[in-house]
Amino acid sequence: MGEPSGTTVVTAAVLIIGDEILSGRTQDTNMRDIAKYLAVHGVDLCEARTVPDVMDEIIAALNALRERYDYVITTGGIGPTHDDITADAVAAAFGVALEEHPDILAMMAARWGTELNAARRRMARVPIGGDLVKNPVQGPPGFTIGNVFVLAGVPVIMRGMLEDVGPRLRTGAVVLSRTVRVEGTGEGAIAAPLEAVAKAHPTMSLGSYPFFTEGLYGSNLVLRGRDENELVATVSELITALTEAGIPGAKEILAA
Amino acid sequence: MGEPSGTTVVTAAVLIIGDEILSGRTQDTNMRDIAKYLAVHGVDLCEARTVPDVMDEIIAALNALRERYDYVITTGGIGPTHDDITADAVAAAFGVALEEHPDILAMMAARWGTELNAARRRMARVPIGGDLVKNPVQGPPGFTIGNVFVLAGVPVIMRGMLEDVGPRLRTGAVVLSRTVRVEGTGEGAIAAPLEAVAKAHPTMSLGSYPFFTEGLYGSNLVLRGRDENELVATVSELITALTEAGIPGAKEILAA
Repeated sequence: MGEPSGTTVVTAAVLIIGDEILSGRTQDTNMRDIAKYLAVHGVDLCEARTVPDVMDEIIAALNALRERYDYVITTGGIGPTHDDITADAVAAAFGVALEEHPDILAMMAARWGTELNAARRRMARVPIGGDLVKNPVQGPPGFTIGNVFVLAGVPVIMRGMLEDVGPRLRTGAVVLSRTVRVEGTGEGAIAAPLEAVAKAHPTMSLGSYPFFTEGLYGSNLVLRGRDENELVATVSELITALTEAGIPGAKEILAA
Repeated sequence: MGEPSGTTVVTAAVLIIGDEILSGRTQDTNMRDIAKYLAVHGVDLCEARTVPDVMDEIIAALNALRERYDYVITTGGIGPTHDDITADAVAAAFGVALEEHPDILAMMAARWGTELNAARRRMARVPIGGDLVKNPVQGPPGFTIGNVFVLAGVPVIMRGMLEDVGPRLRTGAVVLSRTVRVEGTGEGAIAAPLEAVAKAHPTMSLGSYPFFTEGLYGSNLVLRGRDENELVATVSELITALTEAGIPGAKEILAA
């Protein structure tokens, strides 16, 4: 693991691969799980893309993202069926061939014996130069090559594999966040004091996320930054600015 | 609405705008809702991107997507606060200015009277040449310009606005889908018969989506295509192929 520092920014992108996400059949939850996991390691998720199970689309998106960000994490398309083409696409993006990894073949032979057929052996293929990502849940491992980590699409397996990704990341300064909640006042009244405080703290990010539930409305104001002292001070400034603007009851809450 | 035909393919992309999605704070559900809505209109969602509340990122992603696909639907960033910059970014992407739309100003004046402040007026701004997208839920409308529809990020409002998008789309041939479920057999055994049937029907898409729940495992095999007769025939062929491969109990189910 790299040396974290107070200002280091480490960036990542997520590439979600799968027709089932774009057809609306399946609700993706992997992106959010990865975002939260990366945040703990001080890595900023900067972009996410979802592409279909189409070779050229996967290659183009992967090459765009891996060039631009420190890390890319892909999910989906590493099973044994004909529509699982992520390994082929990653190998093509890196301009290398796939080869059956002896450790995966050994695991598979132990598990399947004579039932180790061609489809299952597809899952033993790793791009030359790649390394394995442990799968503590079920089935064969994922892999990593260059700055790309290739994980399963099934959420419980993806989360298990992610535990073997974190220790390999160069870590940045963790982004801390606090939330100030305002009830009974719309964003239109909150905007001016919020913007004034945001402008006074250009290294921080202040966002407003309105809610409307069961007759209750208001907004959660989320403050994010890498300096804890500044963050705490900004929360106070914001509550003061809201109060001075005639908005009652702004208070810090535990993040939703 | 355009003339649907048996083979017309109409494409779309979704652009999700918002730091709260990339930080992991908020689980996006808009992409899936849009995918399902577009599918009913015979429009294929081909790609989705999630970008932060950063002007250049929004502009670059929007320009890439609107050039490539028939339609782009954006969500998020159209509220009154300083971090809501979607309208500015869309105007910049099209190289036009924003102006306050008289219909929105009139609605706002009726709603807010003397409380119609600068922040709320930000939400009246529409790129020159744009048209409004009705908001039947709450707050100001969205807008459309060129092949881009700009909707709210709050899911209930987004879904309401979407109802005013469908009637404006050129519609394609609807993609139909059927699902064959196999229980107690892993994908490794299913792969060969599935691939054989897929190869015999190159205009269709066949995908395998494994499940593991409470001791039950297996896979949902999803068949998708625009020709209903071929779809029905392929379901039969697949069940036959699975049975001949020694896989018991494959049966068609209502889609999950």
